[in-house]
Amino acid sequence: MKKAVILLSGGLDSLTCLAIAKSQALECYALSFDYGQQHNSELKQAQKIAEIYNVKKHLTLPIVFDPNVKSSLINSNIAVLDAKRENNSGIPNTYVPARNTIFLAYALGWAEIVEARDIFIGANCVDYSGYPDCRPEYLTAFEKMANLATKAGVEGLHTSIQAPLLNLTKAEIIQLGSSLGVDYSLSVSCYRANEHGQACGSCDSCALRKKGFQDANVPDVTRYV
Amino acid sequence: MKKAVILLSGGLDSLTCLAIAKSQALECYALSFDYGQQHNSELKQAQKIAEIYNVKKHLTLPIVFDPNVKSSLINSNIAVLDAKRENNSGIPNTYVPARNTIFLAYALGWAEIVEARDIFIGANCVDYSGYPDCRPEYLTAFEKMANLATKAGVEGLHTSIQAPLLNLTKAEIIQLGSSLGVDYSLSVSCYRANEHGQACGSCDSCALRKKGFQDANVPDVTRYV
Repeated sequence: MKKAVILLSGGLDSLTCLAIAKSQALECYALSFDYGQQHNSELKQAQKIAEIYNVKKHLTLPIVFDPNVKSSLINSNIAVLDAKRENNSGIPNTYVPARNTIFLAYALGWAEIVEARDIFIGANCVDYSGYPDCRPEYLTAFEKMANLATKAGVEGLHTSIQAPLLNLTKAEIIQLGSSLGVDYSLSVSCYRANEHGQACGSCDSCALRKKGFQDANVPDVTRYV
Repeated sequence: MKKAVILLSGGLDSLTCLAIAKSQALECYALSFDYGQQHNSELKQAQKIAEIYNVKKHLTLPIVFDPNVKSSLINSNIAVLDAKRENNSGIPNTYVPARNTIFLAYALGWAEIVEARDIFIGANCVDYSGYPDCRPEYLTAFEKMANLATKAGVEGLHTSIQAPLLNLTKAEIIQLGSSLGVDYSLSVSCYRANEHGQACGSCDSCALRKKGFQDANVPDVTRYV
């Protein structure tokens, strides 16, 4: 049985990724991170999702950031702003420096340990917050680096970064997941989610998700406050 | 004052790197990792080194590996072997999957937080254990990925991976460090170092270090068991 490491935040995209990997009959190793995110109810959901999808193993690893980090996802002194539809060009203050690089680095190490050749990440560059580490050129560069980094790479065993949602709209992601039977009420996307996993409905992530359900013509099962 | 993040394991190479960065009048942010290494007395030395070199800030971050990792540096069920001079082609069992990638990923995040543009790593591909993530092609690929990963990169602020020891022999590293006044008794290189930081004298890392002092014609101040 082929193995894969799945980055599982507990959000809509990573849940869809896991469903895709399972539909490909991969043995899944789910990896979540407690990096001090304010919306850490997503971790509880990641745990539930990992159980429901019967992954082989689920790890939640701690990541410590310098408390001076100027990210509203981590630093409680900085407010997560409402979505700005007019200004999608800038990188919002929810950006966490090198987050996906740290996540993928751990995934790379774990993939080598469990002998998985595929790493799934729910990165998307269509309906997204503009983070640089979700862009295709970034993921391509990471994969190239990854295969130079490891003993597996030296031995000719190629590790692939799989980003099956990369060029899909949020609506297409939801349609794809729905066709695979995904229950999106399990997932938490909101940057301001409360301890019960309820969403604010107005942050960048909520706005993208809400519009996704509308455009997909799929009932929005998100639990709003 | 220009800033730099220095990966500081507490070994000979990273100590030399810090001395080089200080000699370039950089404000230094030292970064160490507690990743379950058996030879964790190196962390105590890293702390001392950071104090002596008066770094701006020193962080020691935890990294958790799957306990099934087949690395003798982490897994106490696997023995660190003596140096094999005859067989330098293979990657020894001290190899830790994706270690430098995880280290550099954290360094990249911290560099962006503190607005450092240089990351120093004591990687060396001459007198080394053969780890793939010490090779120049790996470091070049990491730097390329790093500049696509971050907001700083998008804004045109280039982050450089500085590996000033990359093509030096161990003897040349020791000569360079000595010319900068480095006290190598502060550093611990041994993969089997005991809790007092005393070296075994026979592992791969000890063998390389010992030969380095001999070839450099510099007194070996290493504290052996």
